[in-house]
Amino acid sequence: MADYIEGKRPVLEALRSGMPVDEVFLADNIDRDTLVQDILRKCKQRGVKATDVPRKRLEDLVRKAAPKADADRQRRIADQGIVARCAPYPYAALEEVIANADAQMAGNGRALVIILDHLTDSGNLGAIARSAECVGAAGIVIPNKRSAHVTAATYKSSAGAISHIPVAEVPNITRAMEALKDAGFWVVGATEHADEVLWETNMEGKIALVMGNEQSGLSDLVRKSCDLECKLPMFGQVASLNVAQTATALMYEWLRQNDA
Amino acid sequence: MADYIEGKRPVLEALRSGMPVDEVFLADNIDRDTLVQDILRKCKQRGVKATDVPRKRLEDLVRKAAPKADADRQRRIADQGIVARCAPYPYAALEEVIANADAQMAGNGRALVIILDHLTDSGNLGAIARSAECVGAAGIVIPNKRSAHVTAATYKSSAGAISHIPVAEVPNITRAMEALKDAGFWVVGATEHADEVLWETNMEGKIALVMGNEQSGLSDLVRKSCDLECKLPMFGQVASLNVAQTATALMYEWLRQNDA
Repeated sequence: MADYIEGKRPVLEALRSGMPVDEVFLADNIDRDTLVQDILRKCKQRGVKATDVPRKRLEDLVRKAAPKADADRQRRIADQGIVARCAPYPYAALEEVIANADAQMAGNGRALVIILDHLTDSGNLGAIARSAECVGAAGIVIPNKRSAHVTAATYKSSAGAISHIPVAEVPNITRAMEALKDAGFWVVGATEHADEVLWETNMEGKIALVMGNEQSGLSDLVRKSCDLECKLPMFGQVASLNVAQTATALMYEWLRQNDA
Repeated sequence: MADYIEGKRPVLEALRSGMPVDEVFLADNIDRDTLVQDILRKCKQRGVKATDVPRKRLEDLVRKAAPKADADRQRRIADQGIVARCAPYPYAALEEVIANADAQMAGNGRALVIILDHLTDSGNLGAIARSAECVGAAGIVIPNKRSAHVTAATYKSSAGAISHIPVAEVPNITRAMEALKDAGFWVVGATEHADEVLWETNMEGKIALVMGNEQSGLSDLVRKSCDLECKLPMFGQVASLNVAQTATALMYEWLRQNDA
């Protein structure tokens, strides 16, 4: 099934982000303002088909794009007169991420999987994917509910990296952690409550690194399932890093410890 | 002299970012739409005075806010009917940053100064300030021309850290590098052209870390003035990190090497 994006700004953002947009539908009565002109120019640049459709057909597409929106919101969206159809993001299975990690272990004796415990910001998911792809991580694991998933914001903040690293959606994070342990991973949770700092924590070999939600960090259940915990030392008065910054520092520390 | 921010969205953004806004001026004929209501609510929350002024007085303020804008643009801004007056960001002198570093050296045997070689994005400046404040850096040095400076975007992405770390504006980056060398710093340039990776690079003691422009990296002149160069290892197909992510990994490697 395809994904749909509705409204002028989100469609333009999707086109700019590098998200794989299949086709853009415009109501034949759309107000051709500067945003719409930008969209049409971007479609041309990227070779994306832009199709005029009767207002009635666009309303049907909006119902697909925003099935949960109430009638009022659906009408407001249809009033904007634009919907884009995208190829759905090809989420991987957890097994593929593990197989990828095993191949990397065989090749260079190290493997890293990033687990995201209910992140809420799709931009953070992208920023983490960008760093993960840079250090050669085997994949990312996210929950399929109550979590940021891959959107145009992810494509944008990942600078395209989200197309080059497998992202597995799983029904249950702690069960995925158990599966990774069974596959020989050490599961390291990043939490400010840890006793050890990152360079005191052994991250050699096959590591699954768990990052917590932007507000609340790791859930208690997830913390209990970690083999190890580590934190970043913090000085200064603000003493808080963005989750993507924290993940980047941890990933490079993993790489340092595994550098032959 | 005060700074001025003009237009509904920029003023709302400034109020939300934690930037020190002194007073907001609204034209007495302003359209009180939802944006203006949000602005007035935020002013109340933050205890910022909101003053109605005649349209004529607002036009004078816009000329102060955007002195370089042409008459047309000034009129469009005045049409939006809103200007905020802010305390200018209190840039430090390079000597203060050096003194701060010396105090830290005396205290815990390490000091870090971040030099930004003509960054263009004020949000990146804020993200770097956030990480710098977290690792306990002594300050940040930026050029006073052709460079991102501290804006509402900086306050926002720094999560407030920009108020807690000195930022020195200097007329000439390479001269500032020489002054830092004279003060006993080793100057380390971050560049993909380096031979050594970060953990092969000695960053013990008093380090000035130079980060390059988002597009072009370090300038040739700046590279020539560095004592050492280092890079982050890159795998994967995208092989590019945001400058703030790169800086964060480097700052934590500096901290690791100096951890007693």
